[in-house]
Amino acid sequence: MIIVMRKDATEDDLNQILAKIREWGLKANVIRGSERMVVGVIGDEAVIRNKPLEAFPGVEQVMPVLKPYKLVSREWHPESSEVVVGKNHAVKDKAVFGGRRVVVVAGPCSVENRGMLLDMAKTVREAGGRLLRAGAFKPRTSPYAFQGLGLEGLRHLDEARRLTGLPIVTEVLDPRDVELLAETADMMQVGARNMQNFILLKAVGRTECPVLLKRGLANTIEELLMSAEYIMSQGNPNVVLCERGIRTFEKFTRNTVDISAIPVLKRESHLPVIVDPSHGTGHWDLVEPLAMAAVAAGADGVMVEIHPNPEEALSDGPQALLPERFAHMMRALESVARAVGRTL
Amino acid sequence: MIIVMRKDATEDDLNQILAKIREWGLKANVIRGSERMVVGVIGDEAVIRNKPLEAFPGVEQVMPVLKPYKLVSREWHPESSEVVVGKNHAVKDKAVFGGRRVVVVAGPCSVENRGMLLDMAKTVREAGGRLLRAGAFKPRTSPYAFQGLGLEGLRHLDEARRLTGLPIVTEVLDPRDVELLAETADMMQVGARNMQNFILLKAVGRTECPVLLKRGLANTIEELLMSAEYIMSQGNPNVVLCERGIRTFEKFTRNTVDISAIPVLKRESHLPVIVDPSHGTGHWDLVEPLAMAAVAAGADGVMVEIHPNPEEALSDGPQALLPERFAHMMRALESVARAVGRTL
Amino acid sequence: MIIVMRKDATEDDLNQILAKIREWGLKANVIRGSERMVVGVIGDEAVIRNKPLEAFPGVEQVMPVLKPYKLVSREWHPESSEVVVGKNHAVKDKAVFGGRRVVVVAGPCSVENRGMLLDMAKTVREAGGRLLRAGAFKPRTSPYAFQGLGLEGLRHLDEARRLTGLPIVTEVLDPRDVELLAETADMMQVGARNMQNFILLKAVGRTECPVLLKRGLANTIEELLMSAEYIMSQGNPNVVLCERGIRTFEKFTRNTVDISAIPVLKRESHLPVIVDPSHGTGHWDLVEPLAMAAVAAGADGVMVEIHPNPEEALSDGPQALLPERFAHMMRALESVARAVGRTL
Amino acid sequence: MIIVMRKDATEDDLNQILAKIREWGLKANVIRGSERMVVGVIGDEAVIRNKPLEAFPGVEQVMPVLKPYKLVSREWHPESSEVVVGKNHAVKDKAVFGGRRVVVVAGPCSVENRGMLLDMAKTVREAGGRLLRAGAFKPRTSPYAFQGLGLEGLRHLDEARRLTGLPIVTEVLDPRDVELLAETADMMQVGARNMQNFILLKAVGRTECPVLLKRGLANTIEELLMSAEYIMSQGNPNVVLCERGIRTFEKFTRNTVDISAIPVLKRESHLPVIVDPSHGTGHWDLVEPLAMAAVAAGADGVMVEIHPNPEEALSDGPQALLPERFAHMMRALESVARAVGRTL
Repeated sequence: MIIVMRKDATEDDLNQILAKIREWGLKANVIRGSERMVVGVIGDEAVIRNKPLEAFPGVEQVMPVLKPYKLVSREWHPESSEVVVGKNHAVKDKAVFGGRRVVVVAGPCSVENRGMLLDMAKTVREAGGRLLRAGAFKPRTSPYAFQGLGLEGLRHLDEARRLTGLPIVTEVLDPRDVELLAETADMMQVGARNMQNFILLKAVGRTECPVLLKRGLANTIEELLMSAEYIMSQGNPNVVLCERGIRTFEKFTRNTVDISAIPVLKRESHLPVIVDPSHGTGHWDLVEPLAMAAVAAGADGVMVEIHPNPEEALSDGPQALLPERFAHMMRALESVARAVGRTL
Repeated sequence: MIIVMRKDATEDDLNQILAKIREWGLKANVIRGSERMVVGVIGDEAVIRNKPLEAFPGVEQVMPVLKPYKLVSREWHPESSEVVVGKNHAVKDKAVFGGRRVVVVAGPCSVENRGMLLDMAKTVREAGGRLLRAGAFKPRTSPYAFQGLGLEGLRHLDEARRLTGLPIVTEVLDPRDVELLAETADMMQVGARNMQNFILLKAVGRTECPVLLKRGLANTIEELLMSAEYIMSQGNPNVVLCERGIRTFEKFTRNTVDISAIPVLKRESHLPVIVDPSHGTGHWDLVEPLAMAAVAAGADGVMVEIHPNPEEALSDGPQALLPERFAHMMRALESVARAVGRTL
Repeated sequence: MIIVMRKDATEDDLNQILAKIREWGLKANVIRGSERMVVGVIGDEAVIRNKPLEAFPGVEQVMPVLKPYKLVSREWHPESSEVVVGKNHAVKDKAVFGGRRVVVVAGPCSVENRGMLLDMAKTVREAGGRLLRAGAFKPRTSPYAFQGLGLEGLRHLDEARRLTGLPIVTEVLDPRDVELLAETADMMQVGARNMQNFILLKAVGRTECPVLLKRGLANTIEELLMSAEYIMSQGNPNVVLCERGIRTFEKFTRNTVDISAIPVLKRESHLPVIVDPSHGTGHWDLVEPLAMAAVAAGADGVMVEIHPNPEEALSDGPQALLPERFAHMMRALESVARAVGRTL
Repeated sequence: MIIVMRKDATEDDLNQILAKIREWGLKANVIRGSERMVVGVIGDEAVIRNKPLEAFPGVEQVMPVLKPYKLVSREWHPESSEVVVGKNHAVKDKAVFGGRRVVVVAGPCSVENRGMLLDMAKTVREAGGRLLRAGAFKPRTSPYAFQGLGLEGLRHLDEARRLTGLPIVTEVLDPRDVELLAETADMMQVGARNMQNFILLKAVGRTECPVLLKRGLANTIEELLMSAEYIMSQGNPNVVLCERGIRTFEKFTRNTVDISAIPVLKRESHLPVIVDPSHGTGHWDLVEPLAMAAVAAGADGVMVEIHPNPEEALSDGPQALLPERFAHMMRALESVARAVGRTL
């Protein structure tokens, strides 16, 4: 931790800080510059990270030297981690995030009904997808919009898994549902709007079920890593990070997919990283180019929404790929994956 | 709802849309412009708001004509609403949001210990504050930071209420705590990071306890109103909206307080609106000028953090006002309140 | 300057940096922490501010300790500066920015024609405005929109000045017009889109004409101060800073007025600060509340657009105040000004 | 144009609008919905685009149906345009933007001295780059930073062109330099900070020299297209668009590269689109993954900065690639280009 004193800070101000630093069991190193005094604090930065140093008289700014995350950090865990998904006995091939294979997660936005879900599950399987996604519980901006089929949706997902052998991932919204979903699903998704729902993060962290953690619309990469740290700090190491677009002033797209988050996350953390270009762009015709970009930039997977009939979708129709478009994307992704030394 | 067709849309594309509109029980009015066909849909817009019209072939864009909120809307409820806080028998003066009086909510960020809380409660009371705030459950970015005293904190808050007669507001994080807090607290706060935690919104909406709903860091004014609509749609009309800064690229302040949200919210909705300049700016020296601005722009109240000793604060020390600074702000606010025809 | 080394930085990496620092005539102070080495550089920070220290092997991050601006900084010029506007002999009362009086600048967005301008000038004068604004050269997003009357507009402005005795401020777009405008106008405006047009900044900096420098839509407070530093570094000390809204994701307003920029700028710099709520909000009904907020937060003035007939305006009609609305705002502003110990 | 009336709009309000529409030579079509009246305007939308319709009494909002750009629009020019660069007789191979080949533009940020520039030019040539970039005039945030070599820099660029046969692109800052640069350079760059410097846009639009137009940090895709429309409307059709990152709240990167802008721009416009990952990310280690992403998403080229010795760079050292890193990137780009059916 580096503490920069104000130009008009007094020796008393300095001594008050130095006394506190000693009180906390740390050492201080004072640099007297031409215009400012600077204090370098030596010792475990975690001890003072949450101390309100900026509130001390005479302090201008406080600069942390170390990163606030540890369990998720590549610095402390240099090898890339793999997260294996598919614990349910009905799963035929487990999906492995973080390996050589680029994992494609696909499915409808919501479980709308049994027939459509089974249909889409087969489409995913046939085109080479590795994981089936669909929401049974849906977070919707409006209380008047379709809120998901709930438990019935979970039963359909289970049937789709048995039919295709694909593992399933579905969103968890309520801490009271975590236990059930940890047993039922092969992977739980924590959505963008819940990225800093710390109650939910702790709850999924206390299970062993793999977690797909989506970046919040207004959250920094550092905050995404801190939320992953929450989950890991409770004992669950199976976290996959997902970039899904951040909120900016641009209006052509629903959000702005931050492709540079992929190499940054891969450098900062050992956890697998995937991208969701469907929510990230909001338009089906932008999904394929962004999925291509994600794989080219080093993503470990992509997650996309498909629908047999987007005009009838109960949620997010405009961003859903038709089955034939999805198959087209899969072929295109395969070329790019090979160009970067990976497979699909 | 207005549907703009693409330049190359065919009559078949148009007819498919018109058929759907009729199927939904609505009427359509086609305008054939020089370059585009436009369809105006007549009837209850709510019927088609969640239909994926943009997914139809030939559609370029869809423009809603009506606002997606109704219960919170001033259009349907032209008089300003008042929200009365202080149901607990220990409360001496109820706080009324939305009336002539500007309501000042103040207190420490967290309940850190009994003595400090009682002390601060007296400070709030003496300086003319109307409501005591302090967090017993704290949402923290880091799992390693102080997470609040929990139930013990609630007991201290209750004691502070008995001591001063001030009603209390405290944050709710977990839907499993809603019932307890609805009974214990006079008002529940839903924090910025939970503004779109729809499970929590529904839970507080099923109580009668007044709710202080804070705007999320990346949420639009429309989304804030939709979240208030969630609460009201469950039966709880007692919602106070709180602007607390949005996330921008600016680095001098922690967030950018959107003062224009005050007149916009007052125009769009009948609900009371307050501002939190402590979290909005992140620096104690900016709290007073922003509180002044908020009252001048028409806010129904402000919420600020105070601390007897910010250097020792367990959370958010740099933004806390010392008791004497708080008293200074109260005098300054009184002048501005009077200048706009209100009192403190 | 503080240089934080990477965890895996070697002694060789460190020595290479230390050698460079000595080569630049500065001293280094190495702090060996438990996980990182940190180098504090002592001496004139300006020497190394533009050195690419982050490009050295082993360097993780570089943190400047000092602010990059000097001439605009309050640290080096603790008293607030006043900028006097009205050098033209036709001016009856000079406008003084930065004094006890809150300066109201008003006028139509563009000079549309002689009659309307003279009319509006009288309106400004009668309601107590101190400076007349109107654009002769207009920066427009579309090449097909009205681009201003040019020289003819300047002549009308001169006549309006003679008629009312009010000093005039008008926008400069082209470095080739600076000389002419410096002579003709009492104050030149550098618009938001030109805040980092460094050629233009240098050109206005070489005159003695007061400059109204507007913050760019995507520019930080620090960048605004650096642009003012550009002007002052060329010899012109007469700079007034203007907050006019920054670009965010919010859609109800055209921009988000950053009211906290006022106290931050007043703390960081000795230059006067005003606010433009017309461009900042884009809607006439939000102009008055934001002007009130600006004065309450300590602004030295406000600039607003007025129009006798907004439906006929050639630019920015929706944000223009009618003359009677302007008069209403002036009375309201007077109350707030008095509440904060100032006059209009 | 669609005009939505307020709920409380009167028949008089409506009639006033209808009269105006007729006065402008257009036709109106009124839709009377259950809660709002809506007016569809038929005829040339350009006639009313700049009319302040929102300023009329009773109007709630105005929605344009058509895009405000025409010359740059793919709607009116369905085939992709090619921009050929290399008119100088010393150029051996012209660079063609918008064809099958992905064009790599590379070079140092600034011309720092003759030797280094010639050296880097050879590096670009040998690794397969098609265009040499380097700034002679530099826009710098600080007046105290290196401002470029000016005319001497242009002479070195000319020599580098003769030595390698590569065409050259360099930034223009001052409208007074446009004529000279249009003759000297093969392509002129309009930088991000000048994207809405309309004086400069008009000046380069009056030449025939190809223009590399960079997106501003806070500018929407629509505004970028409008700035290109400015250039084309003056007669110069040779415009290449460049995405270079937009300003967001994220702090790990200097800007956020908006990769989705590539497919959106290619869909909306016939102009070629390239990406600058050096300025977009600000860190050399992110340049290669973002360049890969750009090509995978359909970019017609990339522009990157290289330096033989980034620690000595006079500007932007941290984002410069070493020659061997550049060569590595070129090989990686070639694979991705082939995967999407293109070459380098």
